[in-house]
Amino acid sequence: MSQNPLKKHIQSFQGCLHGGLIKESAEKYGLSESEILDFSANLNPFKTPFDHPEYGLDFLKIAAESYPDSYNYPDNRYIPFREAAAAFINTGIESDTRLTKENIIPGNGSTEIIRLFCQCVLNEGDKVIIPYPTFGEYEIQCRLQNVEIVYIPQEQVGTLTAEELKEIGAKILFICNPNNPIAALRTREELIKLAEICEKSETVLFMDEAFIELSDPQQSVADLAKDHKFVFIMRSLTKCFEIPGIRLGFGIAQAEIAEALNNARLSWNLSPLQEKTAVALLSMDGGANSDYLKKSRDLILKEANFLKDELSKIWGFKPGAATTNFLLVDISERTIKSTELAERFAKNGILIRNCISFRGLGEDYIRIAVRTRPENEKFIQTISVVFDEWAKDFADNELKSALMIHKTGRQQNKRETCEYYPCHFEGQDCTFCYCPFYPCGDDRGGGKYIQSSKGGQVWSCVDCYIPHISPVVEKMMEGLMEEDETEEILKKEWEEIILPIMEERDSDQVLALCRKIKEENDKNPKPARKAKGSES
Amino acid sequence: MSQNPLKKHIQSFQGCLHGGLIKESAEKYGLSESEILDFSANLNPFKTPFDHPEYGLDFLKIAAESYPDSYNYPDNRYIPFREAAAAFINTGIESDTRLTKENIIPGNGSTEIIRLFCQCVLNEGDKVIIPYPTFGEYEIQCRLQNVEIVYIPQEQVGTLTAEELKEIGAKILFICNPNNPIAALRTREELIKLAEICEKSETVLFMDEAFIELSDPQQSVADLAKDHKFVFIMRSLTKCFEIPGIRLGFGIAQAEIAEALNNARLSWNLSPLQEKTAVALLSMDGGANSDYLKKSRDLILKEANFLKDELSKIWGFKPGAATTNFLLVDISERTIKSTELAERFAKNGILIRNCISFRGLGEDYIRIAVRTRPENEKFIQTISVVFDEWAKDFADNELKSALMIHKTGRQQNKRETCEYYPCHFEGQDCTFCYCPFYPCGDDRGGGKYIQSSKGGQVWSCVDCYIPHISPVVEKMMEGLMEEDETEEILKKEWEEIILPIMEERDSDQVLALCRKIKEENDKNPKPARKAKGSES
Repeated sequence: MSQNPLKKHIQSFQGCLHGGLIKESAEKYGLSESEILDFSANLNPFKTPFDHPEYGLDFLKIAAESYPDSYNYPDNRYIPFREAAAAFINTGIESDTRLTKENIIPGNGSTEIIRLFCQCVLNEGDKVIIPYPTFGEYEIQCRLQNVEIVYIPQEQVGTLTAEELKEIGAKILFICNPNNPIAALRTREELIKLAEICEKSETVLFMDEAFIELSDPQQSVADLAKDHKFVFIMRSLTKCFEIPGIRLGFGIAQAEIAEALNNARLSWNLSPLQEKTAVALLSMDGGANSDYLKKSRDLILKEANFLKDELSKIWGFKPGAATTNFLLVDISERTIKSTELAERFAKNGILIRNCISFRGLGEDYIRIAVRTRPENEKFIQTISVVFDEWAKDFADNELKSALMIHKTGRQQNKRETCEYYPCHFEGQDCTFCYCPFYPCGDDRGGGKYIQSSKGGQVWSCVDCYIPHISPVVEKMMEGLMEEDETEEILKKEWEEIILPIMEERDSDQVLALCRKIKEENDKNPKPARKAKGSES
Repeated sequence: MSQNPLKKHIQSFQGCLHGGLIKESAEKYGLSESEILDFSANLNPFKTPFDHPEYGLDFLKIAAESYPDSYNYPDNRYIPFREAAAAFINTGIESDTRLTKENIIPGNGSTEIIRLFCQCVLNEGDKVIIPYPTFGEYEIQCRLQNVEIVYIPQEQVGTLTAEELKEIGAKILFICNPNNPIAALRTREELIKLAEICEKSETVLFMDEAFIELSDPQQSVADLAKDHKFVFIMRSLTKCFEIPGIRLGFGIAQAEIAEALNNARLSWNLSPLQEKTAVALLSMDGGANSDYLKKSRDLILKEANFLKDELSKIWGFKPGAATTNFLLVDISERTIKSTELAERFAKNGILIRNCISFRGLGEDYIRIAVRTRPENEKFIQTISVVFDEWAKDFADNELKSALMIHKTGRQQNKRETCEYYPCHFEGQDCTFCYCPFYPCGDDRGGGKYIQSSKGGQVWSCVDCYIPHISPVVEKMMEGLMEEDETEEILKKEWEEIILPIMEERDSDQVLALCRKIKEENDKNPKPARKAKGSES
């Protein structure tokens, strides 16, 4: 076998994990693409301007107009694009600085801009600083250049000094504002100070402002790039105009830097259709303060707060800042991990962003996009569905494991080492730790609906002892050993084993046992405890 | 002024010069884009399949169908594109090797593929071999990686040995087949041998087959990439489907290499519209041997030979091989340089490729695309127009320079150091080396139409002595010193100075002088010589 001509670090290179995997998920979960609701990619929920006839933009008209240009090479200067981009930025900044086309570098998506900048700045072995967690493409593009990455927590950015930066000696510091995935927004004031520190230590402040138009454009520092060689700005049209499939972004740099980057840029990186689309979108009346973008921000603020409120009511869901069109949710208190949660959502036709690829977040976080009210409500409702399914599957697995134990010679299953033992009564049988009938909704067994601490109702079975009485467990296990559908068996057992007890039609021996347990429990009532996975 | 954060070699980086500068040329020469005929970009003259309703492809339908996908991120696996590309290549190769999607790397134009490959293979300081002249992007993309470029003449490629290659120790050898701009076609047999040599010396054979479908697809070696880690193939849809404005190309590599390149590739580098367009074009019945591509090749062969024949008839034009949709033309015998020629063509609404940016060609070559018969005829006709204009301007400049000399105190202007002196008669005045009346067409002065060596007629004034007689020059210069339009003056001088001599109405003194010169010339006739720039 001959050698591999690729650079060593490329041979095993892995690209960046991203959300928005609609096609892949459709294939994986056997869904049609159209029935998938994507909360994993962060786009403008107000939809594209093309979806609003009142703005007078028509994508298919632009396509038809730019079609004759397909016969010719694009004009690689991209003057109309660069002029429109500069004018757009100028409308958004409260500053006397006026950007011109000489400051703009067009990109086939903003990721191409990250890649180009890294390629033009970083030599092998250089250092860069990536505060975590953050957007994954900085790391990927830096790794392509084979540099050393210094990771610092996001919180440390605010206290960085010029001396510390100088000591690290990094070429680039990557800041995403508002940060993806945290949704934390840094102020313009803070960033101006950071830019000064960066300039002193000759570290480029790479500002990813992909989401700024959907958050608070006044915190942008795009104007700084005009006169500062150590400030570079990245912008995206993908998010704010909801056009990830058109691929449009741009860089903003001091004119001399921008000229060199435009020379080093891939020739003809945008098609005439892309350029014309960009010009149309960037040239809407008002630019960064167009009616479209203002309405987008209003919608996002309202819906982000709606989602945050609703999620806060769910036990074990801690949503982060509601500053832009996505929310980071801490689910570390839940038993379920983000990977499994994302899979279960996907099976229900909803994609969420499992944050495992974000350094520092592991399987404890999910990121969800802010969408329209009906979609957000659907998402909230689906949480219940997902957790009911999860609890059912969990109980099912428990049942299977109980069956395994039973087959190998059953003994009364007391889990005395469990921190909750005895959760129902002294001497209980723990085989059905997770009741296969949960939530049965029948209060004759002792269960009842109680108020959840975060609002809503939840079925509590702390006062039901039926499936924990040894003779009952014995009978149920015997049935479950039969060669039949578990669901069918459980239905039969509910009727033939559980109901007779509830309705006091069972054998005297069992009923006596029940009465005895109840008496004892009444004397020493059990404190209500949270059933694992039983509240959603 | 702060330091510049860009790498040193990027700070002064210059991109590649390319043809197809329609917009720029329209601005520069005050033309409308639609009146420009572009012979500077090499595209399929049979037009796109979208222009042929018989093939059932409709670009605007594809645009409409892919529009809903604009709302989502593209599926970065690009499976339909990669499958279609592999199948297309398989139809064109007479080999048992079958490429699959695992061999394909999609590119936003083929230039992105060159860039990606260079980025993934070349470390700073590595060596590459670029045979010259050739397509400029190899050099540009290699320079981006700051490597050492070893230039060898194209002719040397055929005699390269494994030992020589090993000694050079290059990572990549770039071969373009058919070569742009020479249009020379290497055979599959030769390339298979070259691939073996490259493998032995661990130099990647980078095969740019952008024009192969418009030339002779049987010379492709795309199949070699399947099992050879040291063969990489680049393909373009731009040329063969005439879609430079859609940006589509791809790479072909051994599966392991292709996987790494796909991982290192820019995420979402193609839009859904690009992918759908590519799939439609690559999936036409017959693939590389579709009716459309066969007709394209037939048209190109016919028109390339027509152009070659016509150009061969023009003095000082030496067209090269007619193997594909462009011709390289050696114009080194002409006084005019390629830069000026291209400018003069552009002013007449025709863009040709001045080859000054191609190493080894300097200002002695132009490259012209093969277009349709009416367009090719228009090009041939414009050559005459351009050279007439050039000769007129040349004479005009000569006149201006003569006037300058006259103003500073005229003496009889004998250019005795000129290799042609005396070209008309002993003691002639050379002020009007280029006659301002050329070609007057009036044989009474001694001039006449003669047969050109390459066919056609050309005005020879070797036997006319009138504008070289000192008293005539004297009178003409006096008139030309007046403050009037040169053209008006020359018209007047033709009637008042030249015609009286031709019609023997002038002073006896002048007519006597003329008779004397004529007698002497008749005794010692001058051999006809080519007048610089006077034949087109």
